[in-house]
Amino acid sequence: MNLKCQSISQGTVTSPRGFLAGATYAGIKTKGLLDLGILYSEVSCIAAGVFTTNKIKAAPVVLSQEKIARRKAQAVVVNSGCANACTGERGLADAMEMADLTAKKLGISPQEVLVASTGVIGVLLPMERIPKSLEGIILSSQGGHQMVEAMMTTDTFPKEIAVSIMIGGSKVIIGGVAKGAGMIYPNLATLLCFITTDVAIDPSLAQIALQKAVDNSFNMISVDTDTSPNDTVLLLANGLAGNQKLQAGTAETEIFQDALQEVCLYLAKCVARDGEGATKLIEVKVEGALTLEDARLAARTIASSTLVKAAMHGSDPNWGRIVAALGRSGAEIAPSKIDLYLKDLCLLKAGSLMPFDQGKAKDVLSNTEVAIRVCLNLGKESATAWGCDLSEEYVRINSEYIT
Amino acid sequence: MNLKCQSISQGTVTSPRGFLAGATYAGIKTKGLLDLGILYSEVSCIAAGVFTTNKIKAAPVVLSQEKIARRKAQAVVVNSGCANACTGERGLADAMEMADLTAKKLGISPQEVLVASTGVIGVLLPMERIPKSLEGIILSSQGGHQMVEAMMTTDTFPKEIAVSIMIGGSKVIIGGVAKGAGMIYPNLATLLCFITTDVAIDPSLAQIALQKAVDNSFNMISVDTDTSPNDTVLLLANGLAGNQKLQAGTAETEIFQDALQEVCLYLAKCVARDGEGATKLIEVKVEGALTLEDARLAARTIASSTLVKAAMHGSDPNWGRIVAALGRSGAEIAPSKIDLYLKDLCLLKAGSLMPFDQGKAKDVLSNTEVAIRVCLNLGKESATAWGCDLSEEYVRINSEYIT
Repeated sequence: MNLKCQSISQGTVTSPRGFLAGATYAGIKTKGLLDLGILYSEVSCIAAGVFTTNKIKAAPVVLSQEKIARRKAQAVVVNSGCANACTGERGLADAMEMADLTAKKLGISPQEVLVASTGVIGVLLPMERIPKSLEGIILSSQGGHQMVEAMMTTDTFPKEIAVSIMIGGSKVIIGGVAKGAGMIYPNLATLLCFITTDVAIDPSLAQIALQKAVDNSFNMISVDTDTSPNDTVLLLANGLAGNQKLQAGTAETEIFQDALQEVCLYLAKCVARDGEGATKLIEVKVEGALTLEDARLAARTIASSTLVKAAMHGSDPNWGRIVAALGRSGAEIAPSKIDLYLKDLCLLKAGSLMPFDQGKAKDVLSNTEVAIRVCLNLGKESATAWGCDLSEEYVRINSEYIT
Repeated sequence: MNLKCQSISQGTVTSPRGFLAGATYAGIKTKGLLDLGILYSEVSCIAAGVFTTNKIKAAPVVLSQEKIARRKAQAVVVNSGCANACTGERGLADAMEMADLTAKKLGISPQEVLVASTGVIGVLLPMERIPKSLEGIILSSQGGHQMVEAMMTTDTFPKEIAVSIMIGGSKVIIGGVAKGAGMIYPNLATLLCFITTDVAIDPSLAQIALQKAVDNSFNMISVDTDTSPNDTVLLLANGLAGNQKLQAGTAETEIFQDALQEVCLYLAKCVARDGEGATKLIEVKVEGALTLEDARLAARTIASSTLVKAAMHGSDPNWGRIVAALGRSGAEIAPSKIDLYLKDLCLLKAGSLMPFDQGKAKDVLSNTEVAIRVCLNLGKESATAWGCDLSEEYVRINSEYIT
């Protein structure tokens, strides 16, 4: 972790000043687990958001995208178990009602409440149970831990973090929670991530900073290359740290950007590591690319290749698949210049096969974290992507009947 | 099948006049199966080829692409068990030697011999065994059946066909063989396809006709979206049918194009059906798209989605995944206009969920052929893509250690 950035023990989305959260069981999931949560700031926040690029957008995404254009929000209401996607006018009305009910409970304007959902597509929310359930949610400064549970579907562990940084003499805290690949009914792998901070920041800068952090983290992970209609990353900044408001291009903004990046990266890697059925995290670093776009494309294509993922699952040093994925990625390459490493083990040097110890390669691949490094030796750009292995368990999880 | 196009019983690549083939075991595969084959025409042919778009190209692809620029060839030598890819200068020299040895055996110019390989990447051919093995191959007019076996890796059945058509009073035959997803050592899923015909055809037209047929067949199938460095489709036309030479834009050329399309489609569907670990063929038809490009993109994205493929494996009518794949495909869509069918069962009409019998849906999906139809209701273009389900067996095949 960045030296300027201190990790906070048991940190979560309620670690920054003024943020409260809570959750309850509303009967949306079938198992009596937390499935409805609220995140709330005592004062209105600068809000930024990054949403799915899927042309099929879930109702809460449509609604939150509209609301966040104001760059302000004070609360987020989230449920798991039902994606409220492909639910038409009724779905949109339900998402609005969720926001309205939450606003009423909190005594704030419905305009200040964002909505997010994850779960089965094409199913309506059980709205008859929502009002009473929302009413029963108790908000607390430890509530982030409950809220992250209310977001989980087939996630096997909660993903939360908080860090602190010093900005011009003020201690600023950034907290985040995320959920990744999994559903209580096998369905789409939705990414939801909420980041809170007490930093004071210019509204346009907040959006730019979030987009930049997401590009280098969430936009560089892949579980199965399927993009959910519900993907949402939100940043709420309530300004309670009392720092001088961050503006673009300053050293303070750079410190904040680095810390925001750390939070996103930590959560993104958690999501990749916890991909459905995954047994290991795969990190693919591509160096020496002509352009940043090439580096990203190559890294993401290798990390997403089902054949590479299956080989990693079997700890199989089948490097031909890595090179083949690189070749089809669209990135500019020169076959006779490629170096390829598994951790520190060199397999290819200037495109020629290096004699390597198959047993040692298998050992390297048997770890729960596998590092692939490709040097294109064409330029100066680099990028890193994260993925997970492809297991029989992934197929089992995703081929089970939905009802 | 097209009415003008008659299927030939036990047809193969040696069904057209003047084509001979044969194969042998050269010790490239480990199991004593046929692994080295020759396809030969008694007279020189007009030759056309379509090759992998992967920037990493196997040595035989580099060589054959160079040779085919002359638009002429008389023979193809093919091996399985070793892809001769990522093998540098030595690999290229080996591919040349294979061509030279074959030319010598056949008494023709090395320029007339194309080369193709499939198997493990990064391994050199056992050249010490190749000369004697090539020498031992006996060519016959039934030899297509042996040659297709010599191309197989983890294919579970040989893929061959021949059809006849009447062109201006002459009977013209088109034969084809293909191999698809599978390796004796789990490795890349290479597509190799050789098509022979006795038609007389203009050289430029041959290339255009092949590209067109491939775009609607092999370019519309997906097993795992990984593109091999070895993919090769060749067309050899020796003119022995005695028809008036086909020229662009005539009714005769249209008949030939349709028949060529049938042959490619049949072989492409065989490859999809025989995808590694596959238990069913998935056909995705997208209608009413604004552009052909949109229709193709949407159909291919749905057929390639790992989540859709896993759902199909479990006969799970989880239609949200189909719509989500459509949404991320990049094709222009209007969510409120989409109709979705599983075979004849309507799941979505104008974007709204239709009440459907889950049991009936499961029945439809339990067949070995599953038809998904999406009507975008935006324009007049349509396209069909073929894929296969994703099974635990796929993961098992592809995660096993290579040695």
